[in-house]
Amino acid sequence: MSVSIKVGVIGMGQMGTYHAQIYSKLPMVELVAVCEYNDQRRKEVQEQFGCKAYKDYNELLADPEIDAVSIVLPDNMHRQCVEVAVANKKHILLEKPLAKTLEDGKALYEITKDYDKVFTVGFLLRFDPRFNMVKQALDQGELGDIIHLYCRRNSPITGPKRYVGASDLSMHVMIHDIDYINWYMGCEPVKVFARGRSVLLKEQDMKDVIYAIVTYENGAIACLEACWVLPENSPTIIDDKLELVGTKGVAYVDSCDHGVRFVSEKRISYPDSRHWYYTNGEISGDLAEELMAFINNIANGTKSIITPKEAFDSLRVVDAIERSMQEGKEVEL
Amino acid sequence: MSVSIKVGVIGMGQMGTYHAQIYSKLPMVELVAVCEYNDQRRKEVQEQFGCKAYKDYNELLADPEIDAVSIVLPDNMHRQCVEVAVANKKHILLEKPLAKTLEDGKALYEITKDYDKVFTVGFLLRFDPRFNMVKQALDQGELGDIIHLYCRRNSPITGPKRYVGASDLSMHVMIHDIDYINWYMGCEPVKVFARGRSVLLKEQDMKDVIYAIVTYENGAIACLEACWVLPENSPTIIDDKLELVGTKGVAYVDSCDHGVRFVSEKRISYPDSRHWYYTNGEISGDLAEELMAFINNIANGTKSIITPKEAFDSLRVVDAIERSMQEGKEVEL
Amino acid sequence: MSVSIKVGVIGMGQMGTYHAQIYSKLPMVELVAVCEYNDQRRKEVQEQFGCKAYKDYNELLADPEIDAVSIVLPDNMHRQCVEVAVANKKHILLEKPLAKTLEDGKALYEITKDYDKVFTVGFLLRFDPRFNMVKQALDQGELGDIIHLYCRRNSPITGPKRYVGASDLSMHVMIHDIDYINWYMGCEPVKVFARGRSVLLKEQDMKDVIYAIVTYENGAIACLEACWVLPENSPTIIDDKLELVGTKGVAYVDSCDHGVRFVSEKRISYPDSRHWYYTNGEISGDLAEELMAFINNIANGTKSIITPKEAFDSLRVVDAIERSMQEGKEVEL
Amino acid sequence: MSVSIKVGVIGMGQMGTYHAQIYSKLPMVELVAVCEYNDQRRKEVQEQFGCKAYKDYNELLADPEIDAVSIVLPDNMHRQCVEVAVANKKHILLEKPLAKTLEDGKALYEITKDYDKVFTVGFLLRFDPRFNMVKQALDQGELGDIIHLYCRRNSPITGPKRYVGASDLSMHVMIHDIDYINWYMGCEPVKVFARGRSVLLKEQDMKDVIYAIVTYENGAIACLEACWVLPENSPTIIDDKLELVGTKGVAYVDSCDHGVRFVSEKRISYPDSRHWYYTNGEISGDLAEELMAFINNIANGTKSIITPKEAFDSLRVVDAIERSMQEGKEVEL
Repeated sequence: MSVSIKVGVIGMGQMGTYHAQIYSKLPMVELVAVCEYNDQRRKEVQEQFGCKAYKDYNELLADPEIDAVSIVLPDNMHRQCVEVAVANKKHILLEKPLAKTLEDGKALYEITKDYDKVFTVGFLLRFDPRFNMVKQALDQGELGDIIHLYCRRNSPITGPKRYVGASDLSMHVMIHDIDYINWYMGCEPVKVFARGRSVLLKEQDMKDVIYAIVTYENGAIACLEACWVLPENSPTIIDDKLELVGTKGVAYVDSCDHGVRFVSEKRISYPDSRHWYYTNGEISGDLAEELMAFINNIANGTKSIITPKEAFDSLRVVDAIERSMQEGKEVEL
Repeated sequence: MSVSIKVGVIGMGQMGTYHAQIYSKLPMVELVAVCEYNDQRRKEVQEQFGCKAYKDYNELLADPEIDAVSIVLPDNMHRQCVEVAVANKKHILLEKPLAKTLEDGKALYEITKDYDKVFTVGFLLRFDPRFNMVKQALDQGELGDIIHLYCRRNSPITGPKRYVGASDLSMHVMIHDIDYINWYMGCEPVKVFARGRSVLLKEQDMKDVIYAIVTYENGAIACLEACWVLPENSPTIIDDKLELVGTKGVAYVDSCDHGVRFVSEKRISYPDSRHWYYTNGEISGDLAEELMAFINNIANGTKSIITPKEAFDSLRVVDAIERSMQEGKEVEL
Repeated sequence: MSVSIKVGVIGMGQMGTYHAQIYSKLPMVELVAVCEYNDQRRKEVQEQFGCKAYKDYNELLADPEIDAVSIVLPDNMHRQCVEVAVANKKHILLEKPLAKTLEDGKALYEITKDYDKVFTVGFLLRFDPRFNMVKQALDQGELGDIIHLYCRRNSPITGPKRYVGASDLSMHVMIHDIDYINWYMGCEPVKVFARGRSVLLKEQDMKDVIYAIVTYENGAIACLEACWVLPENSPTIIDDKLELVGTKGVAYVDSCDHGVRFVSEKRISYPDSRHWYYTNGEISGDLAEELMAFINNIANGTKSIITPKEAFDSLRVVDAIERSMQEGKEVEL
Repeated sequence: MSVSIKVGVIGMGQMGTYHAQIYSKLPMVELVAVCEYNDQRRKEVQEQFGCKAYKDYNELLADPEIDAVSIVLPDNMHRQCVEVAVANKKHILLEKPLAKTLEDGKALYEITKDYDKVFTVGFLLRFDPRFNMVKQALDQGELGDIIHLYCRRNSPITGPKRYVGASDLSMHVMIHDIDYINWYMGCEPVKVFARGRSVLLKEQDMKDVIYAIVTYENGAIACLEACWVLPENSPTIIDDKLELVGTKGVAYVDSCDHGVRFVSEKRISYPDSRHWYYTNGEISGDLAEELMAFINNIANGTKSIITPKEAFDSLRVVDAIERSMQEGKEVEL
């Protein structure tokens, strides 16, 4: 006989709703509350999930029935919400990034680094088997030392048009790659040269594309590409690739297609079958794995594999990329 | 507060051990017993899982603490073990196939078709997002009616050399495709022409390859290929493909690579990142999804999406394939 | 100093026009005449190529200036035209197939088997490096003996809608694969089971799809698929694949994409970069290789690698496929 | 009746031998002489080709019978040999690069820019249908304006170990991509940031990898990767990729495989079926197309599509890449 873990989700946009669906599916986990500021949306999700629905996250976080929360809010609200959650001693899964600014990130790093509850940041690719297997091959020495790597994370222009004003390419997209690259390298990034360009998103004052060359303490070079202006009819939701060259071997990740493709009168599509997808009516994929790992950390009293230090380091690289683009030259971290 | 579900696993070979690892990981599920006939292996798994370890499955099935069992035994033991499990009112997940013979399959179909506990057969591809998404596209009418399909399930010769005497190609491999094709078609298979050949496995009296052309009630044609004599150094563990042509669209599944590839001094490999793989030390993939669905069926009092009728129908097609190869002509079901 | 080879092309449809363009480009080959029955089209091509333009092929074939001809006429006109060309002692490149009927094919085989000029049939894939390299690997023993093979040649429904009444799937499409498979096997096909289906092309009385299982003298099995009802917006013009499993190795050909892909507002396309394509305004690809080999056979007094016997054998397999579909059972050759 | 073109090849290493084989195959072209310094090799090729064989290229270039030459010598010999060929009024196909130094390149540019015979530099990818089709799509406006592009040209470590002392990564490999990118852009490169690294080739004082970010006059960004330290058992001889993002569409080139793959006991290989390969005993591919274009330029009195200015511009970018790596910062052209 055991007690189920009682969970709340703060922020019921697309990602927050996925979190709620996954918690609803996990055996013996109980979704007891959601929080949504928009009245209409709050009403909808309350009906969908049949649980408490708060407007104010302070109230949800004060609810003593709740053990653990997913925080899925806009980047600029991360700091304050996490501070309240920490004050209320909740286990916390914060959607990436750690914070919108380096200053906020530093503050969050300080209050979470020795936190005695579970604290984790949702860097999904840590749970993607493809990126995870590369880490395993590195740890087992099969690839030798990293000489250099190239990665790409490109997507159709439909995405940024939804995020105008809320986030930019380095923070929203590139940070995924920054996180796993730092994890692979196992040492500090020291220099960054980045160049971006605004053409199709010029009016929105957003970058179409960024290239960044990051040099690490060990001499390894990482070349990152992020572009979110692919044509709307691109068949792939996210075209992410990795090529990592080590002294003993090479690893490749390629998700141009995910193993299933459709060509019909309406569309050519290569749907995502990695991150969140439905099988037999249930949401599945590595987002579910991430949440299950969070629940298991709580149940077993263990720490997350993603540390506050790592979440902060990703933010530092994002900051350096932005500085390099502004200054037109290589910058130091 | 809730009661965890208590599970036993019968048969601790490779697949049974995966089942036990997954149950150990699922939040709030408790692995309370395993069963293994081999003394040495039983000792190993008892240490690994720290639970009861029976030699005789009759004893495990008589254990009143156990709610649910995975049965992962050789095909010819399926019938008797399921009969005992049913007598003991356990929830049952039986690894495919339903049985070794049509007669045994018929008997199991009869005793499980109205069983009031959960009974399911482990046709893994039902939980593979790629094959599942094709079913969804069919159900949504996006592909129109099926005109024809081709599928392949090929693998290196290392596999059959382990199974000598225990199973053959149609029953062990092709049945996976038969199951999902029947599921896609939604009507009865009526005729089968099959041709096989034994070259590299001639001494083992096993088929190297089988081609089968199955015609369905609705006129649709399915062409199946299974071959398990690919070179040992094949980079892909299972090269499975599907091409389904409908009146409104086409679906393709291709797992020649799973999105991650390694080229190192030792090997070129495209590891499986679908069925069972490890991320951060935890076993993941669609086998875990299958077991989670089984647990959720138990917890929610629902039926499995895989029915005894479907499991029996797959067996009928396997039988027809074998008959066609022997008789050298098309046979009826 | 040398004499250029003077060539005529009979039939100025799409393929015939490619022939004429290639001859125009080949160094020191001279396109001296074309033949086209349609007055409007004949006027156009006369302007395009600036050469003689006949309406009646008998006249072109009687023209003493002409050394060699490409015959690119409808299948049912092949026999008569070749007979006249032979009577006029021309070197002949006949577009595949040899003839429309087995009877015509037999007659052509008889008059060309000992012909003392160059006679060849345009089985293009003999010059496709991919299919050619598989033959080379077989000849070098690298793949061992053929156990079995699967091939596919699928294309959008735009194709057959152009050919209504003129050709069917086995003769127009599948014969390409039949030719190279016979070439690979190096022995006689002995039995054929085929099943086809008409759904989208039912009104046109054409097959949508054919599956054929051909068994060879050496025991090897070939499974052929041809389908020409893929959606109009399919990105690939011809999706042709081959998987050949030998006792020592496996060969794969896959032309789902040809190495270059476009995703634009207008289209997703994977253009052909094998058979005929333009680079810097010049037509290139294996069709050009085929014609150059024909010219070199003439210049050097050698025979074509494609023999009348082989061209006739392909026709015999097509005939067996049609018989098997009609009779609903396996037939002998 | 026409006169055949008489050709000589200077330098009978691997590439020079391919040139000679292709000239031997082209209808009505006559290979009349080769030049090879090494006595043993010269004897071999004289037997193979049955033509005159000079030791000293000055003698070959003074031979009045020869209309045209391929110069396939080490980079540092290009300048002097071209100067003699120009003095002798030969049509010239010079293997890339234009020269080893910027100074030599400038000199060659000056003497060839108004040369009244054919002069071309062997940038092979101009004749590769994949890269050529991208140019065509750009010219037709289908892709809009170039926003940015990424390209890769990676290969196994077996290559550079043969070139020690003779060439480096930027000059030998990256220059291929520089040439077609300049061609695509249609405007001047203005700034280059490059970073390289020597690990496996440290002793040879060669770079393992170079990343270069080139910014063009029109604002477009090109990110180039070249690495030639992939494991020896890499299945692909050259892994070259291109992703070009325009304002209206995207183009991709990917040659990880060329459409044909072998998995045998001995090897996993994806052989080249683009550049030079044998079909039915004849050398084929885009190198043959390049030479045929050279012959046609001679026969028709036209200019090559590759100009001295373009060949010199590629050299200027190589020089800037080297300067940027040395100075550790972005440099101007």
